[in-house]
Amino acid sequence: MTSFDSLWNSILDVGQHHSTRGYRRFAWGYADLMLREWFRGEAQKRSMDVEEDRNGNLWAWWMPAGWVGEPTGAFVTGSHLDSVPDGGAFDGPLGVVSAFAAIDILRDRGVEPAIPIAVTAFSDEEGARFGVACVGSQLTTGALAPERALALRDTDGITLSEAMTKAGRAPEHIGADPTLVIRVGVYVELHVEQGRALDLVDKPVAVASSIWPHGRWEFKFTGEANHAGATRLVDRRDPMLAFASSVHSARAAATIHEAVATFGKLQVLPNGANAIPSEIKAWLDARAADEETLASLVAQIETEARSHAASDGIDLAVFAESITPIVEFPSEPREKLARALAHLGEVPVLPTAAGHDAGILSAKVPTAMLFVRNPTGVSHSPDEHADQSDCNIGAQALADVMAAWTAE
Amino acid sequence: MTSFDSLWNSILDVGQHHSTRGYRRFAWGYADLMLREWFRGEAQKRSMDVEEDRNGNLWAWWMPAGWVGEPTGAFVTGSHLDSVPDGGAFDGPLGVVSAFAAIDILRDRGVEPAIPIAVTAFSDEEGARFGVACVGSQLTTGALAPERALALRDTDGITLSEAMTKAGRAPEHIGADPTLVIRVGVYVELHVEQGRALDLVDKPVAVASSIWPHGRWEFKFTGEANHAGATRLVDRRDPMLAFASSVHSARAAATIHEAVATFGKLQVLPNGANAIPSEIKAWLDARAADEETLASLVAQIETEARSHAASDGIDLAVFAESITPIVEFPSEPREKLARALAHLGEVPVLPTAAGHDAGILSAKVPTAMLFVRNPTGVSHSPDEHADQSDCNIGAQALADVMAAWTAE
Repeated sequence: MTSFDSLWNSILDVGQHHSTRGYRRFAWGYADLMLREWFRGEAQKRSMDVEEDRNGNLWAWWMPAGWVGEPTGAFVTGSHLDSVPDGGAFDGPLGVVSAFAAIDILRDRGVEPAIPIAVTAFSDEEGARFGVACVGSQLTTGALAPERALALRDTDGITLSEAMTKAGRAPEHIGADPTLVIRVGVYVELHVEQGRALDLVDKPVAVASSIWPHGRWEFKFTGEANHAGATRLVDRRDPMLAFASSVHSARAAATIHEAVATFGKLQVLPNGANAIPSEIKAWLDARAADEETLASLVAQIETEARSHAASDGIDLAVFAESITPIVEFPSEPREKLARALAHLGEVPVLPTAAGHDAGILSAKVPTAMLFVRNPTGVSHSPDEHADQSDCNIGAQALADVMAAWTAE
Repeated sequence: MTSFDSLWNSILDVGQHHSTRGYRRFAWGYADLMLREWFRGEAQKRSMDVEEDRNGNLWAWWMPAGWVGEPTGAFVTGSHLDSVPDGGAFDGPLGVVSAFAAIDILRDRGVEPAIPIAVTAFSDEEGARFGVACVGSQLTTGALAPERALALRDTDGITLSEAMTKAGRAPEHIGADPTLVIRVGVYVELHVEQGRALDLVDKPVAVASSIWPHGRWEFKFTGEANHAGATRLVDRRDPMLAFASSVHSARAAATIHEAVATFGKLQVLPNGANAIPSEIKAWLDARAADEETLASLVAQIETEARSHAASDGIDLAVFAESITPIVEFPSEPREKLARALAHLGEVPVLPTAAGHDAGILSAKVPTAMLFVRNPTGVSHSPDEHADQSDCNIGAQALADVMAAWTAE
């Protein structure tokens, strides 16, 4: 009965790789630009004015009849359109599609909002291309310095500044946008669940309690390139061994800390089958239930990695690329969500270990999150999935929340 | 006193990366095509006819005055012009430059050869782009099937067939060239040493005794991509752990076998900092003093890798990309070299663990190798080095060998 299904199908082929079936929707690349055009088109169909803020985040506005001047105290909902490499269809787009679908549901019900409503798509949430996550929301809230953002480089050496310029944007204007706080009354992000908690309790939707503190660290192991055949074992300074030991250190430390730690991205130089590597860059993703535990976890991994490197004559440099503190979603919007969803019975309240734009925005405005059941828990993979029936329940739930909020 | 220095300097900027200072001269790429043009130019300056055989190997001919018909029993010398990723300047080009320099030395001495002389540059020796080494010499000698070669792909998915077509070649014509055996009387390859043996005994040049048997195996570890934050440790099928354990297995097995084994090339999918990898392809380079030891070494590494994979729920597939048997250089040409170089005093005779086109050709024609001292032993690295004085001694030595051979 909702417009969810047709909206959903309209972007399924954008940025999907023909062989892996995974999505490759990277910030300011072709698929990302296509999805931005799609966003503008869907907004236009609904007579919603679209603005792209200075940081590339998209905002589509549904203003109350007779509203004069800038929006204030708005109900804002959305997510992001970019993906990890070979990601799934749901992580990000589900929130944007559900937001447009919720608008349609309200209009079908004849609801006239008393306050402004906006659908958003935040730019470069995954950080897949430039290495820093939530670039759009971090810039707008002032959490990321413009000069640092502009100098970020992708693996081809292209800076964010160059990528934005190529896409016709004006990178010299990026930075904090204090008008955001005035406009946004609440930001509600609907997102596919990235674990199996809802499946285990057989519920279609949940409300978020908190986001684990998390961060990304670059470990650069530097040895000496040499011939893989002609160099005796004793003469080698091969950084692969210290890296390999550090992979196991990270897993063991995560187990001890009841946390997670992952080396999932690597760059090997020169990466020749008959060359001992000169350098291995490995990115550690680590998350824990609280900030003290996260700090202790990363300290243990770094200490052990330094010891592995030292015993092989390898240099190790560790850079913190981003560290995001814990986000405790405030109780007031969360309780309002729970009241609006009372007809669904008891709605689970869950923490998440995944970062989101809602976590970034929570530093400046009230935020809340809704999760839609993921029956396998698989995410950041082509196998990521949510049943269409649950997605429709999610869109209805978002519409119910929107209606409750904007009626007051 | 030789033309070596100016020849050497004329190619130093081709394919050198501005930041690493390493060379990126990959088969059929821009730098490779530039070097092929350079080869043609140098041959033309010396009135040597150039032919490119069906497999992309270059041959420049100096025919005896009055010679009628096809060359036979020729003295052939050269090496290759391609490099590993971020390789050094010497591995390959030193042999080609020294060959042209040796021709100049003979002509300065007024030598008129009694048999044909050729300078060669074999195509794609390193296998850096398509994963198989010595493609040019393997095709010409019939050691590599044309259909297998044409289907080889680089990391961008481009086949060798497509790359050759783009470079204006006719890949449908590649394959064994039996005329080679008739033309070549002996193949002598001069090469920079890839170890420190000559430095340790303070000698500028050596003669090769044998090439260790060696090979390249692809280990493909397949797990399941998932979110690096939201996926519990117990739910993961992360192939990075089994790979990391296998790195240590390879090193330990190499130590036990008094051999070498290296994982130097990796491809990680999806290679996102916040994604658990779905797949890791890792290439094992292994070499040992004899074929039985090599087989035992690789079997041990594979067995241990399978055990690591099984305990993590990871699939492992192992493919032998290439296995090259031991090459024992024949005593007759080696002794002839030693006689021609008697004025240098005792010339060391060394085995090498590095593969060479000379090893491939030795299955069909008499071959020999000369090594030039590498004071650090570093190779396959921008730090690869040989002193110009030793390079000049090498070119003179090659000229002495050429003169001795062609006078008979």
